[in-house]
Amino acid sequence: MSDLKRKILDAVKGDLEEIENELTANLNPHIDLVREVAGHILFGGGKRLRPLVMVLCGRLCGYSGTYDKTFSTAFEYLHAATLLHDDLVDEASLRRGKPVAHRVWGNSVAVLVGDFLLARALAITAGTERIEVVRILAELTEAMSQGEVHQLMRKGDTGLSEDEYLEIIRRKTALLFQAACRVSAVLADAPEERQTALADYGYNLGMAFQIVDDLLDYVAETPQLGKATGADLREGKLTLPLIHLLRSARSADRKWVKNLVQLKHAEFTAEEFQKLIDLMRESGALRYTEKVASLYAEKAKAAVSAFPPSAARETLLDIAQYTLNRTA
Amino acid sequence: MSDLKRKILDAVKGDLEEIENELTANLNPHIDLVREVAGHILFGGGKRLRPLVMVLCGRLCGYSGTYDKTFSTAFEYLHAATLLHDDLVDEASLRRGKPVAHRVWGNSVAVLVGDFLLARALAITAGTERIEVVRILAELTEAMSQGEVHQLMRKGDTGLSEDEYLEIIRRKTALLFQAACRVSAVLADAPEERQTALADYGYNLGMAFQIVDDLLDYVAETPQLGKATGADLREGKLTLPLIHLLRSARSADRKWVKNLVQLKHAEFTAEEFQKLIDLMRESGALRYTEKVASLYAEKAKAAVSAFPPSAARETLLDIAQYTLNRTA
Repeated sequence: MSDLKRKILDAVKGDLEEIENELTANLNPHIDLVREVAGHILFGGGKRLRPLVMVLCGRLCGYSGTYDKTFSTAFEYLHAATLLHDDLVDEASLRRGKPVAHRVWGNSVAVLVGDFLLARALAITAGTERIEVVRILAELTEAMSQGEVHQLMRKGDTGLSEDEYLEIIRRKTALLFQAACRVSAVLADAPEERQTALADYGYNLGMAFQIVDDLLDYVAETPQLGKATGADLREGKLTLPLIHLLRSARSADRKWVKNLVQLKHAEFTAEEFQKLIDLMRESGALRYTEKVASLYAEKAKAAVSAFPPSAARETLLDIAQYTLNRTA
Repeated sequence: MSDLKRKILDAVKGDLEEIENELTANLNPHIDLVREVAGHILFGGGKRLRPLVMVLCGRLCGYSGTYDKTFSTAFEYLHAATLLHDDLVDEASLRRGKPVAHRVWGNSVAVLVGDFLLARALAITAGTERIEVVRILAELTEAMSQGEVHQLMRKGDTGLSEDEYLEIIRRKTALLFQAACRVSAVLADAPEERQTALADYGYNLGMAFQIVDDLLDYVAETPQLGKATGADLREGKLTLPLIHLLRSARSADRKWVKNLVQLKHAEFTAEEFQKLIDLMRESGALRYTEKVASLYAEKAKAAVSAFPPSAARETLLDIAQYTLNRTA
């Protein structure tokens, strides 16, 4: 484990334990199968990054209530709900080294347990007694589902632009981080400019996080990633390294890459995948992707730098840095 | 069209037009495909029963705001969301005479557009500015998804009891009607006993409606139903006529029926299906199902009879009666 990861985990140990307890306590289904399937996705080794940044942002705003840990679970439930539905949409096989839910229990159960988790997130949000928080969650859920449809529609399209890619990951990832950070400020009755600053932190953190996620899908080691690399390519999902490569490659290489993306049943070989990564390295696509992620991480840091120094602020800065350093 | 249906439609013509307009105006997706798929399920000939009873119940409580028609769409969106997901879960082919969405656009799109509609329902609910209404919707969504999982788990199980069946349809249908009627009273600031009375109306109406729905799946004419009869049997879904038959049939018949339910790939013939219905008729299963539905409809009528006479009350009484008379 890197020193930075160790430092973050030491700083938030108590918070993570409380979040973990709340995740179990608030799940509360009537049906055992729902508990089992929800548990499979919820307690399968997630980083708890969304609830954690929400709690830390609340602390930064001097939140003094007792509902922060409870409420933070709404973001993890919502995240888990979208994972259940997205794994089905993406026809994924593995997540964090385990078979995905729809492969174990079937599509139907995955859909319905996702719906249940979405509803739990909403019920917990209603528990804040703040209608504007409900509104933020509702708008978030709308945007996320449309982001996924957008991504689905553009599958296999080698004409996807960087701007369109950024818009897709904004909806599917960054908005959830943004909402988590913004509502923590709303609940703490922080002034508007603090809400905006934390929303900016969340948005930029989410963008950096997803871009690195998409990069790791090419360059991570499989055991650390918990699934085979190349999943995005297999699903015809264009992400930044590939978009940059298509833009910058020589004509012959570009043609070869396009063919690879459009292969029926994604039947590319390990050698072809390695050649693709070599091309990404040579053309500067990997470096470019790292650079874009790092710009977002820097913006995230700048957004919290306006707050006075505190342990919470330091951890939020460390988390922004960690999105770049992580290897899985 | 029956005289009763004509009378109801004449009484609510203006309301239905406004609800229809609001359903279009509030859908509001960014993505054309989302509009198309949501439109397929939303504007495919639904009865608008849920928004309609909500609006009528509000009128009964003297609701004087302007948000009732807008808010009523939340219940239709929520209903449409569950139809999209349930058709997938049930592996259905036709709804109201048209191919279901997941057969046209695939499972992924059906799941994601369902999520979008759920989120729209929530956003419109937040527009009431009443946190208790949000809480009712959240609890409803949780209960509905668990009801569907429950039903799925018991598929093909000939040991399903009448009580368990009633619990399943309570969650999957009656709670939505109940919530629609209750929140109309909450929004009109009606006293607690009126809220309870309307919740009772909605609950009992929903139970009657679903029991008749399940009956029609055996005895309706296919063109009127918009899909083949026998869908529940094909899906291994036990409903009241079959539960009663299994309970009351002679031993040899019971064995034959059990085999029919458990047939691989539901490969029963038209003759076998007709024999099943004959058995249901002879054993009194059809009559019993009608009787149970009618008891719920009577309870629904009793619940609104406490209100002073008005046009809205008369239509709510007519609707309760209509659930029994309808042929599709």
